[in-house]
Amino acid sequence: MSAPDDERLARAALNQLGEPGDTKMLGLVAELGAVRLHRLLVEEVDPEGLRTDVALRLAAVDPARELERADRLGLRWVVPGDDEWPAGLDDLGGAGAVQERGGVPLGLWVRGPARLDELARGVAVVGSRAATTYGDDVAGEVAGAVARAGRPVVSGGAFGIDYAAHRGAVSAGGTTVAVVACGADRVYPQAHAAMFDHVVRTGAVVSEAAPGCAPHRVRFLARNRLIAALTGGTVVVEAALRSGALNTANWAGRLQRPLMGVPGPVTSAASSGVHEWIRTGAMTLVTRGAEVLELVSPAGVATVAPLRAEETAYDRLSPKQRQVLDAVPVAIAAGTESVARTAGLGLREVHGALARLREAGFVEAGPRGWRLAEEART
Amino acid sequence: MSAPDDERLARAALNQLGEPGDTKMLGLVAELGAVRLHRLLVEEVDPEGLRTDVALRLAAVDPARELERADRLGLRWVVPGDDEWPAGLDDLGGAGAVQERGGVPLGLWVRGPARLDELARGVAVVGSRAATTYGDDVAGEVAGAVARAGRPVVSGGAFGIDYAAHRGAVSAGGTTVAVVACGADRVYPQAHAAMFDHVVRTGAVVSEAAPGCAPHRVRFLARNRLIAALTGGTVVVEAALRSGALNTANWAGRLQRPLMGVPGPVTSAASSGVHEWIRTGAMTLVTRGAEVLELVSPAGVATVAPLRAEETAYDRLSPKQRQVLDAVPVAIAAGTESVARTAGLGLREVHGALARLREAGFVEAGPRGWRLAEEART
Repeated sequence: MSAPDDERLARAALNQLGEPGDTKMLGLVAELGAVRLHRLLVEEVDPEGLRTDVALRLAAVDPARELERADRLGLRWVVPGDDEWPAGLDDLGGAGAVQERGGVPLGLWVRGPARLDELARGVAVVGSRAATTYGDDVAGEVAGAVARAGRPVVSGGAFGIDYAAHRGAVSAGGTTVAVVACGADRVYPQAHAAMFDHVVRTGAVVSEAAPGCAPHRVRFLARNRLIAALTGGTVVVEAALRSGALNTANWAGRLQRPLMGVPGPVTSAASSGVHEWIRTGAMTLVTRGAEVLELVSPAGVATVAPLRAEETAYDRLSPKQRQVLDAVPVAIAAGTESVARTAGLGLREVHGALARLREAGFVEAGPRGWRLAEEART
Repeated sequence: MSAPDDERLARAALNQLGEPGDTKMLGLVAELGAVRLHRLLVEEVDPEGLRTDVALRLAAVDPARELERADRLGLRWVVPGDDEWPAGLDDLGGAGAVQERGGVPLGLWVRGPARLDELARGVAVVGSRAATTYGDDVAGEVAGAVARAGRPVVSGGAFGIDYAAHRGAVSAGGTTVAVVACGADRVYPQAHAAMFDHVVRTGAVVSEAAPGCAPHRVRFLARNRLIAALTGGTVVVEAALRSGALNTANWAGRLQRPLMGVPGPVTSAASSGVHEWIRTGAMTLVTRGAEVLELVSPAGVATVAPLRAEETAYDRLSPKQRQVLDAVPVAIAAGTESVARTAGLGLREVHGALARLREAGFVEAGPRGWRLAEEART
């Protein structure tokens, strides 16, 4: 199923008139519909002063030509009513605005085979551009685990954690999607050209900004809400207190999507924002992909077994043997009778248990009695 | 005020008869009173089989001599009814048992000037014996901050985090208390002899085990509940999945004391237990002393200001200037008119703002227009 042509054209026209996430424009679309709003503007009506804002652009807009041009660039324009339209984006209609950016986008420009409506199963992995080696490694591992579970990894294509996340998904043979702040036909940053090439062939580059648009600060802010809304949950790997990744996190919270953070050393400024959000309860701490998958899955699916250390020789002791071991002094030896008294067990029983504990290397016997073996003391 | 002599003597006798945290013994004391329970045992009554358990020791017990001997060793025996008795210990009466250890202790043996009833203002800082340098550093810093706030730092005197916590408190000129598993007259581990010397002179070494007792595994378990019960909150700095520090944490949780954990790299096994407890909501993440102090203080006292990055040149921009800055392309320059269109502001206003932004180093002007300065791009 596809949206009707007039809807598709009106949305393309409005998309060229306004900025991504322009709350006034998107609010009017929600209220009046795209076709009606576009007609009002063309007819020189000025709802809420919108025509005044977009007057400079209005003359230049030719949506049919824009869609043809996009098609030549390998871009498709996905709008509400299309099969591929991801329902998660509609949640943005009730999620308010941050720094005057918000709302359901008019549509998204997509370059690559990945379908937008499959990203709800995916996970956003985002974080600092100024990532540490530690952050890069962990982001790559988390993204790899998500990809191996057959779920797409979504990020922003930027330096640092974004790049590590895309690369981690690619290395695991998975699908990754870059939601960018410039036009989806552009490559920014240029240093990631090879990675974008790969993403376009196997996943997708997605943007709300019309083709050809340059990356502006304000477009990054609008873009962040899409990363949160398209995915089933957001993981922040490293974010300093001012990191843009926390803007994405804020959107995930507003949209009531699972919001996760990977901790790091408290001495690392790159983790300070993540720690602050975990501390205040806004983010759930995660340490590995399995924990992420549990949180983005329905309850009872992909449940993580509680972390356990590997079974040790101690685990293989019987309860009685453990009771006797507990009663053996750490350093200064004690006789069998003293051990029996502490353990509250009979002498005969304790005698047998001590022999087994000695065999297993837990205790040692000396002239003054029993004590813990060196390696059993800690 | 002091407890009556018969109470003090009965408790000393029972303390020598049973093991620290023996739930049967301590349950009978709670039910019958120490004086009555001691009399029953001497009269060869066998309540709940307790006499059978302690028969081997009963003949040797002489509490008056024990108290004299303790006095010579510089130890005092603090029991319920004494001014110094810390009310927090009574909470153990309703906190159940872990591995058959629990209950309100009969009394505590104390060596050093610190008063037990002042430890409720204090903070327990505990963690792995096999600590990393990172863990040692953070434990020392947290303990130092607690000490500088005039609160005692309580730990277990062991290798690793315990030692770093005591040392951090001492370096900050504060009071520190070691709650140990052997007799309070003993020094274990021997390598900490100098530290114990200092603690005995300025703080206190505290134990539930009778003087002369050797450190046993089971006594460490009993000891851990005291660390949690004596203090106003417990901070775990590093703990692997099996760390004994998590046993202390368990007690802090049972006693509904604030329970805090310091995160570390997710790649560090030494932090894995802490991460697991934070992840599941059992522990609150903390990164520094101020956050610990907030959690152990009454609501509204010692409140931590939300972490903020230092004020930057960006913070000093006016809202209009920021709006213009947001509209300047990151990489490929745009003319003033284009910037004005994106910003949704008048040309004249944008012209002035761009000049100020250039002065402040945020944007640069080239032949093709304005773009973000190199250092303003991330």
